[in-house]
Amino acid sequence: MTLQIGEANFQYQLLLQNQIKLQGLFLAGFDLKSYLKKKRMDVDKALDALLPNPDGLHATLLEAMRYSVMAGGKRLRPVLVLAAAEAVGGSQSEAMPAACALEFIHTYSLIHDDLPAMDDDDLRRGRPTCHIAFGEAMAILAGDGLLTFAFEVLAGMAAQGKMEPSKSAQVISTLAKAAGINGMVGGQAADVLMENMEINAEQLSFIHEHKTGALIKASVEIGGIIGGASREGLDALSRYGAALGLAFQIVDDLLDIEGDEEVLGKPVGSDIEKRKATYPALFGMEESREKARSYVDAALSALHFLDSKAEPLRAIARYVIERNR
Amino acid sequence: MTLQIGEANFQYQLLLQNQIKLQGLFLAGFDLKSYLKKKRMDVDKALDALLPNPDGLHATLLEAMRYSVMAGGKRLRPVLVLAAAEAVGGSQSEAMPAACALEFIHTYSLIHDDLPAMDDDDLRRGRPTCHIAFGEAMAILAGDGLLTFAFEVLAGMAAQGKMEPSKSAQVISTLAKAAGINGMVGGQAADVLMENMEINAEQLSFIHEHKTGALIKASVEIGGIIGGASREGLDALSRYGAALGLAFQIVDDLLDIEGDEEVLGKPVGSDIEKRKATYPALFGMEESREKARSYVDAALSALHFLDSKAEPLRAIARYVIERNR
Repeated sequence: MTLQIGEANFQYQLLLQNQIKLQGLFLAGFDLKSYLKKKRMDVDKALDALLPNPDGLHATLLEAMRYSVMAGGKRLRPVLVLAAAEAVGGSQSEAMPAACALEFIHTYSLIHDDLPAMDDDDLRRGRPTCHIAFGEAMAILAGDGLLTFAFEVLAGMAAQGKMEPSKSAQVISTLAKAAGINGMVGGQAADVLMENMEINAEQLSFIHEHKTGALIKASVEIGGIIGGASREGLDALSRYGAALGLAFQIVDDLLDIEGDEEVLGKPVGSDIEKRKATYPALFGMEESREKARSYVDAALSALHFLDSKAEPLRAIARYVIERNR
Repeated sequence: MTLQIGEANFQYQLLLQNQIKLQGLFLAGFDLKSYLKKKRMDVDKALDALLPNPDGLHATLLEAMRYSVMAGGKRLRPVLVLAAAEAVGGSQSEAMPAACALEFIHTYSLIHDDLPAMDDDDLRRGRPTCHIAFGEAMAILAGDGLLTFAFEVLAGMAAQGKMEPSKSAQVISTLAKAAGINGMVGGQAADVLMENMEINAEQLSFIHEHKTGALIKASVEIGGIIGGASREGLDALSRYGAALGLAFQIVDDLLDIEGDEEVLGKPVGSDIEKRKATYPALFGMEESREKARSYVDAALSALHFLDSKAEPLRAIARYVIERNR
């Protein structure tokens, strides 16, 4: 009996060692930096191709949209769409228009957030914000245009026979919910309404889950839908996305305090100056770091039954923490 | 031979007389005022049911959306969706969510147009505009929220199995194109960019076709798609919608000069004061009236092969001119 348990334990240890060895090899073999660079280049190319060139009586509008979308940035949301699609066996080419749609929505939210009536920011990614460069009216319209264009691109896929209509409806529904009043816009409204107020942990969670979390989660879910994920796979991706979104936001809050202005593209401490609700303000630096780590762990464990095709998603989750070093 | 032609001619005259008699009877029997009142009430009820009640940390956002949508108004776009669906044999209940989506988009455009950076209007339909009542940040977000909610409602229909996914994709694609950079937003941008400039007839057409025409045309098309119009029927509705949109805009311009402030809900002459591009400014009053009449004729003749179910659409086109009496 003892021997059997010992034997079983021995076999298990062996298995574990092999797994760790394999994982080590794999990790050593997976170069996230190159992966992200390649995906970003592909996304940038697709964004450039989708965006209309400035022409006609409304050329300045198209120019303002292009100015803001092509300002660079991490392209986190589109990369997540592609990585999630590929994690469940889908193709980059089918997922790319949706990846671009996510970036259009993200960019519109930045343009409107930067407006004088909102955060009143003059700089974004080291360049004048859209309303500084093109005027406030054009910035409002560029945001409206990008938001609408995202849905035009997605619905166009189905209308042109490039995506199953039922898939398209699911993608559009997921995106609209995540970007709208029960998602990003709702979170932004709560943030505006509670500025300069003492808020509690529950209120902070609401803001972050909605304002940034919802769209990050939706990116992963949309990739999964397009990639043809099973119900179980979609559920795993959804939990991964939710945890990743929260980890990302906490690290963003931390970077605002301890980060490098050049890396951030905005003045360090700008959240504090505006008395914005942040994790460090509520929980302190160390507990915030701990929370971020535990969300990354949750994100990784959500993916436990996916195979090596999910490695980019795992590496992205780990990278979120590494950004903060 | 002569006799035969005479006979044929006689039969034709008889037919024509009967047709005119029938049409007269029908027209006498069709009460547009009651029709519009009934449809508006149905639309108002559906809008009320769809809009979320103010609750949660973003309650003020939901309140601002409701405030602007439920401010009343003609509900022209939703009524057109319903009338077009019924003109080709569709049902009001299937078309209603899309009718509401059109009104959400229209309302968002009014909220953003009224902003200080745009038209800077304090009054709309006799009440304080959204940014006067709720602040500028909340008005921007209420507009963003309504725009996104329109797509959420439409995609939700298919996701919940209440509309064929392929129909849903066609509807969303039509709406996004009409509302976006190649439609309403593009027209609004051109209008902003050319304010205080001398413009020609071509530029005026561009602005009107895009800024107001595109969404009115899309309303009719979307009703047709949902109602299951044939390709020929959809084409007829599309031409009707395009002509109606132009007639409507010209009459709007005329009313701004000669209308009643109480009916308009905005100060008479406000377009002139802002040096906005209008038909009367470019063509004079009489030629503008003539243009409106000929667009109404074009709208009516586009519907020539549709049966009596299209009577509400015909009556609406005639009514556009009557508004100007």
